[in-house]
Amino acid sequence: MVNVQPIKGVQGQADERLRETDNPSSQVALFGPDQPLRLDCGVDLTPFQIAYQTYGTLNADRSNAILVCHALTGDQHAANVHPVTGKSGWWETLLGPGRALDTDRYFIICSNVIGGCMGSTGPSSTNPATGKPWGLDFPIITIPDMVRAQAMLIDRLGIDTLFSVVGGSMGGMQVLQWCVAYPKRVFSALPIACSTRHSAQNIAFHELGRQAVMADPDWRQGRYFDYGTHPHRGLGVARMAAHITYLSDAALHRKFGRRMQDRDLPTFSFDADFQVESYLRHQGSSFVERFDANSYLYLTRAMDYFDIAADHNGVLAQAFRGTGTRFCVVSFTSDWLFPTSESRATVHALNAGGARVSFAEIETDRGHDAFLLDVPEFLEIAHAFLQSAAAARGLPQAGN
Amino acid sequence: MVNVQPIKGVQGQADERLRETDNPSSQVALFGPDQPLRLDCGVDLTPFQIAYQTYGTLNADRSNAILVCHALTGDQHAANVHPVTGKSGWWETLLGPGRALDTDRYFIICSNVIGGCMGSTGPSSTNPATGKPWGLDFPIITIPDMVRAQAMLIDRLGIDTLFSVVGGSMGGMQVLQWCVAYPKRVFSALPIACSTRHSAQNIAFHELGRQAVMADPDWRQGRYFDYGTHPHRGLGVARMAAHITYLSDAALHRKFGRRMQDRDLPTFSFDADFQVESYLRHQGSSFVERFDANSYLYLTRAMDYFDIAADHNGVLAQAFRGTGTRFCVVSFTSDWLFPTSESRATVHALNAGGARVSFAEIETDRGHDAFLLDVPEFLEIAHAFLQSAAAARGLPQAGN
Repeated sequence: MVNVQPIKGVQGQADERLRETDNPSSQVALFGPDQPLRLDCGVDLTPFQIAYQTYGTLNADRSNAILVCHALTGDQHAANVHPVTGKSGWWETLLGPGRALDTDRYFIICSNVIGGCMGSTGPSSTNPATGKPWGLDFPIITIPDMVRAQAMLIDRLGIDTLFSVVGGSMGGMQVLQWCVAYPKRVFSALPIACSTRHSAQNIAFHELGRQAVMADPDWRQGRYFDYGTHPHRGLGVARMAAHITYLSDAALHRKFGRRMQDRDLPTFSFDADFQVESYLRHQGSSFVERFDANSYLYLTRAMDYFDIAADHNGVLAQAFRGTGTRFCVVSFTSDWLFPTSESRATVHALNAGGARVSFAEIETDRGHDAFLLDVPEFLEIAHAFLQSAAAARGLPQAGN
Repeated sequence: MVNVQPIKGVQGQADERLRETDNPSSQVALFGPDQPLRLDCGVDLTPFQIAYQTYGTLNADRSNAILVCHALTGDQHAANVHPVTGKSGWWETLLGPGRALDTDRYFIICSNVIGGCMGSTGPSSTNPATGKPWGLDFPIITIPDMVRAQAMLIDRLGIDTLFSVVGGSMGGMQVLQWCVAYPKRVFSALPIACSTRHSAQNIAFHELGRQAVMADPDWRQGRYFDYGTHPHRGLGVARMAAHITYLSDAALHRKFGRRMQDRDLPTFSFDADFQVESYLRHQGSSFVERFDANSYLYLTRAMDYFDIAADHNGVLAQAFRGTGTRFCVVSFTSDWLFPTSESRATVHALNAGGARVSFAEIETDRGHDAFLLDVPEFLEIAHAFLQSAAAARGLPQAGN
C-alpha cells in the first residue's frame, strides 16, 4: 500500500481565532445605527466595527498619519506579536523606529478590512439579527467598501488628511482606491505590487481557491459554525494554490529545487518526497489555524470585482484626473501575479491624469511576496519616497 | 443569503469510464506472467496490459512506425472519437491524412500509459490478486516505466526501430526517455513543450492537485471503488488548477478578459460572474467524467520523479552521448509550465552529446496547450521535420 499523508486538518488555535472575531486584541471603533456603512451591493451594513492597531504618535496638527492597508490574508497586526499565531508582525521589515514607516516620526494606523476575520465586521462576526455568525448572509463587499469603512475610521480618529496610504497586493488596491475616492485626503500614496483591476488569470486562481473551500463538505454551505466544523482541508488547498502564485519559479528553484525532504532517494509513494511539497503542506496547515474560510471567499471576491476603470467609463486616467497626491508605484521583476506591466499601466494612467508619480521596478527573484520580505532596494525606495514626501509636507525630522 | 454554485459532482459517464479500464474500446496487448514489467520501484508488475490505437498501415520493412506519446490527461484516442466523451481525437490537428503525422504515409501507434485509466493497467484496473481495483495498492510508476512498457508493445508489434517518437508535455518526457533508454530504436524524435526534469514549481502545482483529491472525503484513502464514490470535487479542483497552468495569462485575457457571464453587472454573489469562472468550472466538471482520480495521483507523481540527469550522474549530456537520433525540440513562447528555457537546456545537452538537433520556439500566446491547438507554425514545423526525417530514412512519399 502506497503511503499517503494528506494535508492536516488542524483545529489548534481555532478558539483564539474565534475570540478575535468579535472581541479582538486591538482597538475597536464601533459604528452604530446612525452610521451605517453603505456597501456597493446596495446594503447598509449596520452596526459594524473596525479593529485596528496604531504605532507611533499623532502630532499636534494631525498631519503625520499613515494608513497601512493589508493584503488578502494579512490583518491589522503589522508590527506587533500576532494574538493568534504568536508570530511577529507581517511588515516589521518596513514598519518600526527608523524604518521607512518610521514610528518615531509618523502615526501609523493599520485596520482589519471589512469582511476580514480579525475583529472588523465580516462573515465570521456575530450577526446581531440572529446572534449567530453571519456566514453567507454577510453581504458581498468590495475594495471601495473596505476603503469607505477606513475613511469612517479616519474620521473617527479626527484625521482629515492622511500623510500617506501604503500597501501591497490587495493593500495596494486599497491605496489606489483611496486616491480615487478621497483624492484630497491623501497627500502621498505608495501602491506596491498591485493593479487597478484584477486580471483573468488572477480571477481564475481565486475561483480555484473558492471552489476548493466549497468542495469541502465541512464548509456546509458556509454554515460550518452551526456544525462545529471548519473546511480546513479545502482552505488548506486554496492556500497552497495561492502560495504558489506568491512565489516565483526562480525562488522555488533556489529555495527547494528538486531536493528531497530528509532523504536521498525517492520513496516511490505519495509522501512529501520533495522539500517543496512539505513546505506547501505546512503553508496550508498553518494558514487554516488563523483564517476564516468564509472571509477567504469574500475577500478574494472583492479583489476579483476590483476594476477602477470600469467605474470611470472605462477610462482609467479619468479616475486620477487632477489628483494632487504624490505617487510612488512599485513592482517586482519576478512577480507574475501582479507583473510590472500592471504597474506600468497604472503609471501611464497616473501620468495621463496629470499626477506626480515615480515608478520603481525592483529586481528580485522573490516573486509577489517580495513586498513582505527583506528586499533592501525596495525598503530603501519606500524610505526615500516617504522622507521626500514628508519634507514636502513640512513634517519635522524624527526626534525634532 | 449569497448565492453559491459549487463545482458539480457529475457521475454521468462513470459507467463507460469504468468499462474502459479493463475492457477498453481499443486493441489490447496482454503480457502474462512470463513477461512482467520491471518497475523502477523494484516491483514486477504482472500480468499487465496495454491498450492502444493504430492509424495508417505498417509498411513491408516495418520502417514507417511512429509512436505518439500522450500527455498527463490524454489517452490512446489521438485521432478517433473518444469512447467515453464522444469527442474527436485530441491530436487531430497533427494526425490524419496529409497532416504532419500522415496516416497515408506512416503507421502510427498511440498507447495508453501504464498507470492510466483507459485500458492500460493502472490503479483503477482489477488487481488479479484481489479481484478488486488496485487503488493505492498499485505500485508507483515512473516515466521510464511507461516507456519500458511501450517498448514491450513495440516488440509485440514486431517493430525494431521506430521511425519517430512524438509527444508533448508528459508525452515529450516519454519521447526524451525513449531516446535515452533505446537510442538505437529511435530514428527521429519530436519532444514538444517538455523538459528533462520537472521543476519545483511544477512539482508544487502537482502536489496541490494531489492534495485537492486527497482532501475530498469521497476519495476514501484511494478506496472509493469499495464505497461506490469518486472524489469528483477534489479532482475537479485539481483539474481547474492544472488548467490555469496550461493557458497563458494573455490567452485568458484574450479569451475572457473581465467579461461577465450572461450579464452586464456583477451579481454581488459567488456565482460565476466572470466567464473565466464558468469556463474553469466546466473544465473541472467535464474532466471528472472521464478520468480516474487515483490515475491522476500516479501520473502526476511520475512526472514529478522524472529527472534524466539524476539517472546519469547529474550530467544531462551523458544521457544523450553518441545518439544517432535526429531531434526537433519545440517550445512555445507563452508556455510558463514548460518554458523555452527548459527546451533550451535540453537542446544544449543534446548538442553537448553530439546529437543532430533542430530547435523551434513558436511565437504564440496560447500557452502550454498550444501543442494541442491549431497553431499553424507549429504544425508546419512538425510536418517539415518529419518529411525531412522520412527522406533521410528513405521512406517513399505518401501514395507511392
